[in-house]
Amino acid sequence: MTRSLTILGATGSIGRSTVEVVLSHRDEFRVEAVVGGRDAGALAATARRLGARFAALADERGGAALKDALSGSGIAAGAGTGAVIEAAERDADVVLAAISGTAGLRPTHAALKPGRRLALANKESLVCAGAAFMADARRLGVEIMPVDSEHNALDQALAAGRNGDVETAIITATGGPFRTWPRERIAKASPQEAAAHPVWSMGNKINIDSATLMNKGLELIEAHHLFDLEAERLAVLVHPEAIVHGLVQWSDGAVTAGLALPDMKVPIANALRHHERLPMALPRLDLAAIGRLTFERPDETRFPCLSLAKAALRAGGAMPAVLNAANEIAVGAFMAGSIGFYEISECVENVCSTFARRNVSGPATVLDALALDQEAREAARRALPAYTH
Amino acid sequence: MTRSLTILGATGSIGRSTVEVVLSHRDEFRVEAVVGGRDAGALAATARRLGARFAALADERGGAALKDALSGSGIAAGAGTGAVIEAAERDADVVLAAISGTAGLRPTHAALKPGRRLALANKESLVCAGAAFMADARRLGVEIMPVDSEHNALDQALAAGRNGDVETAIITATGGPFRTWPRERIAKASPQEAAAHPVWSMGNKINIDSATLMNKGLELIEAHHLFDLEAERLAVLVHPEAIVHGLVQWSDGAVTAGLALPDMKVPIANALRHHERLPMALPRLDLAAIGRLTFERPDETRFPCLSLAKAALRAGGAMPAVLNAANEIAVGAFMAGSIGFYEISECVENVCSTFARRNVSGPATVLDALALDQEAREAARRALPAYTH
Repeated sequence: MTRSLTILGATGSIGRSTVEVVLSHRDEFRVEAVVGGRDAGALAATARRLGARFAALADERGGAALKDALSGSGIAAGAGTGAVIEAAERDADVVLAAISGTAGLRPTHAALKPGRRLALANKESLVCAGAAFMADARRLGVEIMPVDSEHNALDQALAAGRNGDVETAIITATGGPFRTWPRERIAKASPQEAAAHPVWSMGNKINIDSATLMNKGLELIEAHHLFDLEAERLAVLVHPEAIVHGLVQWSDGAVTAGLALPDMKVPIANALRHHERLPMALPRLDLAAIGRLTFERPDETRFPCLSLAKAALRAGGAMPAVLNAANEIAVGAFMAGSIGFYEISECVENVCSTFARRNVSGPATVLDALALDQEAREAARRALPAYTH
Repeated sequence: MTRSLTILGATGSIGRSTVEVVLSHRDEFRVEAVVGGRDAGALAATARRLGARFAALADERGGAALKDALSGSGIAAGAGTGAVIEAAERDADVVLAAISGTAGLRPTHAALKPGRRLALANKESLVCAGAAFMADARRLGVEIMPVDSEHNALDQALAAGRNGDVETAIITATGGPFRTWPRERIAKASPQEAAAHPVWSMGNKINIDSATLMNKGLELIEAHHLFDLEAERLAVLVHPEAIVHGLVQWSDGAVTAGLALPDMKVPIANALRHHERLPMALPRLDLAAIGRLTFERPDETRFPCLSLAKAALRAGGAMPAVLNAANEIAVGAFMAGSIGFYEISECVENVCSTFARRNVSGPATVLDALALDQEAREAARRALPAYTH
């Protein structure tokens, strides 16, 4: 059965992998719409390859270039926020939401339509507006399939039992480039050193989050909303080989784990599937060839961001959105060379404490979350000079 | 909801672990019947501890001792084959079938009753009479839950998808005591050396099967019947730590694995559960504490029994039963010191070849399987002198 698919963030890393998955299953999908950010040429090429009906560019200024590049193709084009929202709302059985950052919040939320499946790769929808987002998804009967390798692995492992029988859901972390470094050396790490991710090739910002382990903290918050598991039932395990992505410890002592070679096409194919799996012609996991898998406890002393994220998860309400916004600003300052590695966590902690004292309530809507995000970013910018060297 | 439970093989290793599980969940189970082999005292004690309604001893000569030991308890007693079959047939929601060897074939088959759940630990029901046994189970709507740690792990992992999407179901092997030994040294191994299992404490016979890897071969045959997976979709992986028990490679590249500390109470609790898991107060798997898991390809040159079992699985029909019978006789001879380690596989291969030439058809009933088993044992006994030193 052919299903219609819309890809939000079609020209980014997840989007490009999604295009590959779709092109290897031409009979399974009819592409309704594709959305890109600024690169009109790349978006037009993607829309043509997929035979999409509509292409929308977030950057309004690229609208003319997109129309030009699509002329004669029969593919309708649009640009700007309205066009992006239109793309998200058009009829489609499945929407893959991979616009990154808070820019993805509104389009991803707009993609919540009755009975639809949402393959979710936008972290902020859950981190900044998780409660409101999931409530809307439930109300509308939207089936959310996580695209993140960790959450996708957990989603599969959780099929082996019931939520009430989950003792701990564990996501793994490679440990980042500083896994084996002593604290003193990490303190002096350069942005280039922090951005060198050992396994996954991602954007710079997310690589820094991997080095601080904030990335895993944010993933715990996502897991909380996706799987309805409280903080006490969520944990992180360091696993440098990135083969085991998630594990579920059941109340009877058994553990179910989700494994895969680190290739985003695996969780994407899984998130796009209907009932049966999409056969993928990818290399298979060969544990005998890999030989060994190693595991360590995460060190929250050397990586305090993980501990801050756990605290935000336990606090709930506004705190995860505040944590995320403060982290973005602090990581930006670190990447610009104006603060050191451990000033990232100090700045985040400072901003979180300020908001905790004010007892700010959690966002009731996605628009509330965007306002809160702006407010926390401004607070972080104000806090930054204290850490700037 | 209290469920009624009968334990066949209550005084053996699996049976004793089952008793522990049941005693830790007194409200969940009412014990209908317990069956033991020869030890009247142990069976009577078990029946009293569990408050069973009926106790049956396989050994007819122990009947009087059993009655004596149960006098005043209100627990009915019986002895001999008829009493064992009666115990298996009595009304019970769940029957745990853990009588080992071909002695378990008839009582386990007698336990197939409409709508019942069978927690299956008797290998021979599947190895010797798999097709007939599973056909009867399906016809009667019996839900079979495997108790073996490997098959139980696979059963849980398979919940993450559909049979048609399984590319390979993998069971793990510790590799046995000779995993790292060169062939020349293995050739001279003593029964004591072969019986030293690195992880599980089992009977002598099964430990030898672990050393030859025949155990894993038989488990592949079991998996074939349990999960309706042909030989090409089944594989063995050596994993000395015995933490990962089974893995499912899906067609989309994802892998789901079943893990647990090596404690039979984990798969037993899982096999006894209804919809929800039975909470077990056992140590939890702590991968960070374990540190690493290692994996190797099995070496069918040093361990030819695995290759023989795979051939029997592919051939189907009578061959698995013949293989199993020949192996029992050859292992007996090895344990008695009359043949060497590699004469086990030579003898098995010899007997299998003889039966393959005769084109013997597979057993249509459990009684057929018992007759075939006897015939193959006799053939193995006749073949043995050629290998005796």
